[in-house]
Amino acid sequence: MALIVQKYGGTSVGTPERIQAVADRVKRWHGEGHDIVVVVSAMSGETNRLIALAKAIMPDPDPRELDVMVSTGEQVTIALLAMALKKIGVDARSFTGAQVAIRTDSAFTKARIEAIDDARMRADLGKRRVVIVAGFQGVDPEGNITTLGRGGSDTTGVALAAALKADECQIYTDVDGVYTTDPRVVPQARRLDRITFEEMLEMASLGSKVLQIRSVEFAGKYNVPLRVLSSFADEGEGTLITVDEETMEQPVISGIAFNRDEAKITVRGVPDTPGIAYRILGPVGDANIEVDMIVQNVAADNTTDFTFTVARGEQKKALAVLEAVAKEIGARQVVSDDKICKVSLVGVGMRSHAGVASQMFGTLAKENINIQMISTSEIKISVVVEEKYLELAVRALHTAFGLDQPKA
Amino acid sequence: MALIVQKYGGTSVGTPERIQAVADRVKRWHGEGHDIVVVVSAMSGETNRLIALAKAIMPDPDPRELDVMVSTGEQVTIALLAMALKKIGVDARSFTGAQVAIRTDSAFTKARIEAIDDARMRADLGKRRVVIVAGFQGVDPEGNITTLGRGGSDTTGVALAAALKADECQIYTDVDGVYTTDPRVVPQARRLDRITFEEMLEMASLGSKVLQIRSVEFAGKYNVPLRVLSSFADEGEGTLITVDEETMEQPVISGIAFNRDEAKITVRGVPDTPGIAYRILGPVGDANIEVDMIVQNVAADNTTDFTFTVARGEQKKALAVLEAVAKEIGARQVVSDDKICKVSLVGVGMRSHAGVASQMFGTLAKENINIQMISTSEIKISVVVEEKYLELAVRALHTAFGLDQPKA
Repeated sequence: MALIVQKYGGTSVGTPERIQAVADRVKRWHGEGHDIVVVVSAMSGETNRLIALAKAIMPDPDPRELDVMVSTGEQVTIALLAMALKKIGVDARSFTGAQVAIRTDSAFTKARIEAIDDARMRADLGKRRVVIVAGFQGVDPEGNITTLGRGGSDTTGVALAAALKADECQIYTDVDGVYTTDPRVVPQARRLDRITFEEMLEMASLGSKVLQIRSVEFAGKYNVPLRVLSSFADEGEGTLITVDEETMEQPVISGIAFNRDEAKITVRGVPDTPGIAYRILGPVGDANIEVDMIVQNVAADNTTDFTFTVARGEQKKALAVLEAVAKEIGARQVVSDDKICKVSLVGVGMRSHAGVASQMFGTLAKENINIQMISTSEIKISVVVEEKYLELAVRALHTAFGLDQPKA
Repeated sequence: MALIVQKYGGTSVGTPERIQAVADRVKRWHGEGHDIVVVVSAMSGETNRLIALAKAIMPDPDPRELDVMVSTGEQVTIALLAMALKKIGVDARSFTGAQVAIRTDSAFTKARIEAIDDARMRADLGKRRVVIVAGFQGVDPEGNITTLGRGGSDTTGVALAAALKADECQIYTDVDGVYTTDPRVVPQARRLDRITFEEMLEMASLGSKVLQIRSVEFAGKYNVPLRVLSSFADEGEGTLITVDEETMEQPVISGIAFNRDEAKITVRGVPDTPGIAYRILGPVGDANIEVDMIVQNVAADNTTDFTFTVARGEQKKALAVLEAVAKEIGARQVVSDDKICKVSLVGVGMRSHAGVASQMFGTLAKENINIQMISTSEIKISVVVEEKYLELAVRALHTAFGLDQPKA
């Protein structure tokens, strides 16, 4: 008998029929004797409907009032799921974020959880009730409704699991786990049984959008075992995300992530003086443009080239900022390219295995793929290559690092 | 400078444009220096949409969970109205029933207000903010969300006005006041400038559905001046509902109410023994059938006829109950008729004027309308007549009692 937190996303609760299917699944787990807390999102499409309604009144809606409104999406789902459970004979109770209470700061539309009161949930669990909690929302010190920002229901699930010291937090989604890479690009991609929090963070932030990054950070910080499962496939173990256990036999590479949504910007002929990186990236940050990879090579002839990547949608805005900056600092030229992509190897096994980088570069060379940028971290190596080589690069690396599914 | 509570119903906030129109009206009142608390209903159609969604899961939805769900309708409107006010430069804040807090008992779907905490509202009014409160909802002693039942937003408005000792509670609706009778039946019907709470109660319970009965009772009990106004017509004084002031020149009759939705049931040849009324109506009440008029005439030959009216939709159910009862008590026969209607004169002036009844009966006789049942209260006389005479009866009485609009 375990205490399990299950989180179901918007697609999993998108219709009354799907809500009933979720109830059936919850009943199975509950029937095995487990204590179950369920976190749900708004029915798919509902949050967008509410935001559109708000924008019909006020193009840039007041954040406090937007949270009052948008939080109703999850409030509807919790009630429907409680009804669906009662209908099949399982006692259940729904709670809004404020009712739990999930206490947050007052940063409307992007609040952070500060504390969770588990008394009310424990009282109901003690009566063998299924506890259903609205994801994505909380209450600030003055009793105002807050939301955690998009995708925040994952964070709610993990935070509840941490507060309740749950045995596992199960995230039900439309995929049945975390894969070595995107199966649409590499048909031989394999579902991972386990992955570490750190690897998952690198995979997620690189564009494998299975889980919200914040929820993975949170789970790592509080050591909550996190499992990604499909709410459509009937059973299956999914992927367990856990701490890096020394005794575990680690493969060198766990997965390959990639991202097409980047553009590369290079400032050429930058005077090689202290503080120059700040003078370039400061104005970019001030313009609310997020920068991903940053590469600066050692200087030759007192000038250097400074390159970084941004989301493609921000490319024009970044260029406009940089034209002014370049003149100011006396740089020679600003060039950019959006026909690029980033490919990354991720794996904690990298730490103890030399030669991963050289094997990666060798594999790409063999396919005649030119590397434009390189950036490394302890458990990741990323390269930027021409966009047209994306599939070729990912498939070649997937095979080279032994990630392909064993042939049946 | 007054403290005014304004309540807007579902039709008045049915679209973003109408919500903006409400905001414009609130701004005008607020700009005149008044403190304004606004109570709103769910956008028209929204409550029905939510109930349908609940029924798709559970045909007879769990009451606690239904309240969690249905209360989201008003929660959306308060946020939208707050945005609409901010957009035109008026500071405003929305509050759910729980946030205020409006404390109720735990009778889900039909809760009663027990207390209202005015501290939070006063703090915002003190900052010259418009306070917007979700109608129809509250919170029980355990923090569960409750609703007051359909039409409960009127009650919320009046209860807030009572708690805040407001100078006036304005109910905005799709009619511009209370009329002497339904203008669709009598084109000469006149809007009343004033009406007493008691008269309004009689008018409302007789089918003039301008205000929810409970809200009028509540207003009378706490002596809250209540005004019915149109949210569509641009200005106008509406109808003020107040206590019966002795000094006020009272007309004899204030209005004529009528109800087509009744059926008449007669148990003939009932033994005239003590307790017989209870033996007939007890089982009817046990079957949850509400009885309206009850008439029992003095007995002849040791038996009597016992007649009462029920809503037409309950006629069959009532007959089934009575067939059994009639056998038990040895009554001769049960007959019923649904081709009837009830017409009532209402007016506090009746108290001090003799002859209202005889004038009423005389007027009907002159039109050859046969009276089937008569029932009277201190400020009301009701008769049951054949349904086809409804319009004729109402028009004749309207003229006879001087209610017709003065000709232009």
